[in-house]
Amino acid sequence: MLETRIVTLLTDYGLRDSYVGALKGAMLSIAPHLMIIDVGHTIAHQDVIEAAYTLKGYYREFPKGTIHLAVVDPGVGGPRRPILAETRNHFFIGPDNGIFSYVYQQEQVSQVIHLTAGQYFAPEISDTFHGRDVFGPVAAHLASEVEARWFGKWVEDFIKLPLPQLRAAAGALAGEVVHVDRFGNLVTNIDLASFYALVKGKRYRITAGAESLESISRSYSDGQPGQLLALFGCQQTLELSVNKGSAANKLGKGRGLQVTVQAV
Amino acid sequence: MLETRIVTLLTDYGLRDSYVGALKGAMLSIAPHLMIIDVGHTIAHQDVIEAAYTLKGYYREFPKGTIHLAVVDPGVGGPRRPILAETRNHFFIGPDNGIFSYVYQQEQVSQVIHLTAGQYFAPEISDTFHGRDVFGPVAAHLASEVEARWFGKWVEDFIKLPLPQLRAAAGALAGEVVHVDRFGNLVTNIDLASFYALVKGKRYRITAGAESLESISRSYSDGQPGQLLALFGCQQTLELSVNKGSAANKLGKGRGLQVTVQAV
Amino acid sequence: MLETRIVTLLTDYGLRDSYVGALKGAMLSIAPHLMIIDVGHTIAHQDVIEAAYTLKGYYREFPKGTIHLAVVDPGVGGPRRPILAETRNHFFIGPDNGIFSYVYQQEQVSQVIHLTAGQYFAPEISDTFHGRDVFGPVAAHLASEVEARWFGKWVEDFIKLPLPQLRAAAGALAGEVVHVDRFGNLVTNIDLASFYALVKGKRYRITAGAESLESISRSYSDGQPGQLLALFGCQQTLELSVNKGSAANKLGKGRGLQVTVQAV
Repeated sequence: MLETRIVTLLTDYGLRDSYVGALKGAMLSIAPHLMIIDVGHTIAHQDVIEAAYTLKGYYREFPKGTIHLAVVDPGVGGPRRPILAETRNHFFIGPDNGIFSYVYQQEQVSQVIHLTAGQYFAPEISDTFHGRDVFGPVAAHLASEVEARWFGKWVEDFIKLPLPQLRAAAGALAGEVVHVDRFGNLVTNIDLASFYALVKGKRYRITAGAESLESISRSYSDGQPGQLLALFGCQQTLELSVNKGSAANKLGKGRGLQVTVQAV
Repeated sequence: MLETRIVTLLTDYGLRDSYVGALKGAMLSIAPHLMIIDVGHTIAHQDVIEAAYTLKGYYREFPKGTIHLAVVDPGVGGPRRPILAETRNHFFIGPDNGIFSYVYQQEQVSQVIHLTAGQYFAPEISDTFHGRDVFGPVAAHLASEVEARWFGKWVEDFIKLPLPQLRAAAGALAGEVVHVDRFGNLVTNIDLASFYALVKGKRYRITAGAESLESISRSYSDGQPGQLLALFGCQQTLELSVNKGSAANKLGKGRGLQVTVQAV
Repeated sequence: MLETRIVTLLTDYGLRDSYVGALKGAMLSIAPHLMIIDVGHTIAHQDVIEAAYTLKGYYREFPKGTIHLAVVDPGVGGPRRPILAETRNHFFIGPDNGIFSYVYQQEQVSQVIHLTAGQYFAPEISDTFHGRDVFGPVAAHLASEVEARWFGKWVEDFIKLPLPQLRAAAGALAGEVVHVDRFGNLVTNIDLASFYALVKGKRYRITAGAESLESISRSYSDGQPGQLLALFGCQQTLELSVNKGSAANKLGKGRGLQVTVQAV
């Protein structure tokens, strides 16, 4: 069995309410020796896509057996299912609303369990706070050697959101901005391998809105302050960035902006 | 004696100054094996009421023996006393400014100690930062088996803020908004039991400012986007909420807004 | 050898991206028993000075052997060096961009190592995220008994930013605001000892912009709401503060504002 002591938390609960505290308390009451690791609690309100993308950026860094709790849950109390997904190295607990879409895309999923075993939930379950009443308790029990399959039933029809696809046509790649980070970097889904497969030493033009670029920078500090740059970020995908500034502000655009690369 | 390893932190110290770090360091220098649990550090500046309400939402979730540090302390350096309150299951450390008012209302308090035993404080005590110099060190010593009564003297006249009372008259309940959460939900002091004791299957009208509602929703996602809902939140009190929006913005109101329920 | 289990984190990574999570995961994959202590992740974007000042406020509070990671790194991927500085009691890991300037001023530095030993870094090192790929892994290995000198080579020419100097002339002290905290307090570099050496019981005038004050308050709650106060803050330096308000807002000024004390 996997070791399961670390639990990471990603939520939209904010940092001035009792929600984060209540979630942590509920877990520690069941498993006082958990190592709870805050990733962030200020995901934009109910933005499942942002949470899904953010999760993609960190889960693989954690040791085998880590439990990743991700709760951005606009459908809490409605028909959406609470689930536990197990992959080769990690566990994921949260609502079945697509928050694990990138995980499903990138990992071999060994099982997805619809959480139904009420003996592992809080004694009373509110319709508004499954973090405290369902997801947290399940994570704590899982960390206390309860096996994944005991929490409920296999499901096959878990929700996968349609993720933005990189489209390649002769001599061009059409991608889009999939995330805007704190620094205003516009992160696209154009990956390093596809980019170099296209350009192969040729000249190229990167176009985003009214802007175009003809070279890749190495780091955020290249060029002049205020200058728009294209570079490959920490997940090896193309980003638009502004030296000492914000590409999101400069372009006035965000998620969904089309970005193309054309060999010229 | 209670086990005392977990210390929760709720402050208005913010997340870009040294205050949170200094508090944590001061505690760990005394008790390196503490498990420090961040609840939140962005309580509105000097808003003791908000801190008191927030604390109410999480302290009970933690295991027996947990130490809850809550420091929103506009009177630091003045005559207000530093205190330690002990209840059946928990310890509470902070300024005697009413921050524990909900705790006093909900728990049987076994003792409240005015912290005076300087040997458990920092060697030098600033007039501006008792988190680092008084509250943190006391929490760390308490977690290291120093007994509560050794920190000072019993007091009986600890501060209880007047909490908003739910008033019931024939056929009606008059409550108010006691908290606005990150999502813009307007949380009232109208509890589930009082509500159903009043309505008992009859029709009812919930009135808040210019808005009125005649049904209770089950979850935040009920109704149409933008629609005002009433529902019972995670502490089983009536909340006004807007599907995919903010009730606080829709009503333009916050704490103190009168909310009534009338059987019709 | 120093005990090295606690790692503190100060960054400008924000709280809604994957960066904090990826950094923590990278450390825990190497050293699963680290105690990671969040100080703050919302240092103003690329503000090395703010980070340096903030670090000064907490590092000394931590136990001997603590590893302090501070990553505000506008030059990531460029020529700036990654370093590890060791002082009598602590370790500091981050970019060599002056972020440790106050540490160098206040501590006896036993060695500064340019991090070059790639076997302690991530297998692939991005040009944009040395927190995850260099600093975090080095911190984790250091906490796992790798000795500081094994990470690279001694350097002597590490970057010390010019820190604002307090100037004393006959009968006067000329300092400046070096930090604005969350509460809007304007923190200066005028220290308690210099102040009292100057005034020695005489009358004095403190001048900041158009405002002047002729007394020192004891705490933030002195005076009337809205009144400007001068007091000695938690690092025993002169601060301008407004009772229940913000001195930064009242004066419309921030870092760099000249503040003078004159004996009269």
